[in-house]
Amino acid sequence: MLTEIQGNCGAPSSFHTTGISCSIKKTGEKDLGLIFSKKPCKAVGVFTRNLVKAAPVVISKERIKNHIHAVIINSGNANACTGKQGHDNAIKMTQIVEQCLDIDAGGVLICSTGVIGEQLPMQKVEFGVNKICKNILKPNQVSDDYFAESIMTTDKRKKQAAYSFRIDNNTVKIGAAAKGSGMIAPNMATMLAFITTDANISRSAMEKALRSVIEDTFNSITIDGEMSTNDTVLLLANGAADNPEITDDTPEYDIFREALFQTCKKLALEIIKDGEGASKQISVNVKNAASKQDARKVAFGIANSLLFKTACFGTDPNWGRILSAAGSVENVILTPDKIDLYIGEQLTVKNGSVSPDYLETEAARYLKKKEISFTVDLKVGEHDKTVYTTDISFEYVRINSEYKS
Amino acid sequence: MLTEIQGNCGAPSSFHTTGISCSIKKTGEKDLGLIFSKKPCKAVGVFTRNLVKAAPVVISKERIKNHIHAVIINSGNANACTGKQGHDNAIKMTQIVEQCLDIDAGGVLICSTGVIGEQLPMQKVEFGVNKICKNILKPNQVSDDYFAESIMTTDKRKKQAAYSFRIDNNTVKIGAAAKGSGMIAPNMATMLAFITTDANISRSAMEKALRSVIEDTFNSITIDGEMSTNDTVLLLANGAADNPEITDDTPEYDIFREALFQTCKKLALEIIKDGEGASKQISVNVKNAASKQDARKVAFGIANSLLFKTACFGTDPNWGRILSAAGSVENVILTPDKIDLYIGEQLTVKNGSVSPDYLETEAARYLKKKEISFTVDLKVGEHDKTVYTTDISFEYVRINSEYKS
Repeated sequence: MLTEIQGNCGAPSSFHTTGISCSIKKTGEKDLGLIFSKKPCKAVGVFTRNLVKAAPVVISKERIKNHIHAVIINSGNANACTGKQGHDNAIKMTQIVEQCLDIDAGGVLICSTGVIGEQLPMQKVEFGVNKICKNILKPNQVSDDYFAESIMTTDKRKKQAAYSFRIDNNTVKIGAAAKGSGMIAPNMATMLAFITTDANISRSAMEKALRSVIEDTFNSITIDGEMSTNDTVLLLANGAADNPEITDDTPEYDIFREALFQTCKKLALEIIKDGEGASKQISVNVKNAASKQDARKVAFGIANSLLFKTACFGTDPNWGRILSAAGSVENVILTPDKIDLYIGEQLTVKNGSVSPDYLETEAARYLKKKEISFTVDLKVGEHDKTVYTTDISFEYVRINSEYKS
Repeated sequence: MLTEIQGNCGAPSSFHTTGISCSIKKTGEKDLGLIFSKKPCKAVGVFTRNLVKAAPVVISKERIKNHIHAVIINSGNANACTGKQGHDNAIKMTQIVEQCLDIDAGGVLICSTGVIGEQLPMQKVEFGVNKICKNILKPNQVSDDYFAESIMTTDKRKKQAAYSFRIDNNTVKIGAAAKGSGMIAPNMATMLAFITTDANISRSAMEKALRSVIEDTFNSITIDGEMSTNDTVLLLANGAADNPEITDDTPEYDIFREALFQTCKKLALEIIKDGEGASKQISVNVKNAASKQDARKVAFGIANSLLFKTACFGTDPNWGRILSAAGSVENVILTPDKIDLYIGEQLTVKNGSVSPDYLETEAARYLKKKEISFTVDLKVGEHDKTVYTTDISFEYVRINSEYKS
């Protein structure tokens, strides 16, 4: 049984987090975060599949199998497309953490998020990294709130989750924080998520659990169909809960996996709720597709359709756009004359044409809600998929046309 | 040599066009158009690949090899997702034209564009189709302007092109009109284009010419990545110019193909200029890709990126978004550290990092122009592709959130 607890990555035993401003952001908001565990952590990660990878992604991928003690994160600058200098700057940041916190070389991971293509202001950053390492050792400076704030870019709210649960007679905790509100798409676009646990767990069980929960959580959300250069999900386990080691295919593994799933799902939905300019949280459910892949392709085809998303913004039950978006997905098995569509619970389309009982006014009223759902029943197989998305509003355009300059 | 001439589909000899209002549109604007040729036409067409096909698409595809005398088109209602009744209604429209204009059964093609999923108001439509058939026989009612207006939906301007050219000693004419401003994507989303010619030309030469020009014209434009249920491009030839028949692989074929190419290119660019809410016409040039397909995928990956398009709207030289969009295209050969990027003529990114000579203020000034271009040199092969797109503005969101209700 999971119990919700306070905080995020600092909630599990022997993890410490904080965040400060080092003036990468011109607004003076927090832009540097640190996770630290004196006990060494096993770490597993999932990284962007964008071929253009930011320097910190490259470095963290290389180090993921080391004994990890810390993760340093900056926001306001993605350190992507920054060449050798960008790589050197990222290495320098990790070296400062290693020195200040007495960590073996290679024991620090790094993530960045923000504008692509600009070099980090290293004088400010070096000063900041030194300062945050000193803060993390002072109990009154440690703060999960500061940490969650420090990783935000266009996010309007902190995204965090933490739970405790029992493994044998031990209390185990899991905590997490994430950022992301634009560039959210399958395969984790501009999203950073940090998950810590004090569970004692094998590396292969961590790897297996993370891979298995990602598909139905972070990889089932889309805001604008964009995949970024910096996406990273990290899971760190320091074993401080002293439970007997969790390994694959045990009842304890299932308990851990469930806790990880709930943590990731909560963060994924928090990201959707905070989608750039979003006025709605939308579930697109595809049912009875011929294959898992078909279900996924159709669900994302609808969820990424601009015409669908703007219709949702306008609370317009324009169901034709949904059928059109479904039909335009390439290489899926789909019989237009079989499709049923529900707006909320209301049957709107029956076998490809409007249902005789359909009430447009009722559908329009339903779409005024903040959380809405659409169900497309393809009736050609047995595979289902739900994806979560947002509408596209004036505010989305404003944020993204003004973001940089 | 091509000479630009007045009008559109009525410009070639023995073609007549007009348009009227039959009150499908609540605004009272024209919504019914007709093309008529007393001489029988050979016809070839390219139709949507959306699996959800509107009734008129299904019917026109079936009839395309018949002797064609007329095309009846309505706007304001797509007659898509309308089941058997929609199919019967479309057939009924063609039958009225056949009767009124003394055409053999199956000699009329049909297209519809507008809202998906509603039945046509057949009382108004039948009255209108009868009326337009009478008008087309009255010289003072024939009008290319009326025709081009009658096929518009959210279009803000008529889209037309007409040229004359010489084949042997004969003057041959080609004329065309198109509609489309949203749902524009590869494979001709919500786009109708009608091309007429009085050339005497073989069916196989027509087919070959149309297929060969589509890739670099109508299939190289994207406004919002949407492919519709109704897309159709029709080419009709009635042979009234009395030139010796044009067949494949002759110098005359090349002349005809060039005229067709210029006609389609002009219409494709007109569609881009009239993109829903568009404030800019954008060319995305991809150079030196490993394959033609890679070049196309990367060009469309950039052109359909919402973050790229909103940055263009904000005249923000956010080149990182361009590299990120290129890198997120799946299954292409791409080496991030080799990519050069030009904003207009200015080298912005050299080998994956910002160029030392790059002046952001100059790029921002350039992006204030109405026509802007970006060139991405992948340097991994020899294949190029240019696609045309628009920005995404507040106006796009307004139009598409208010379109139906």
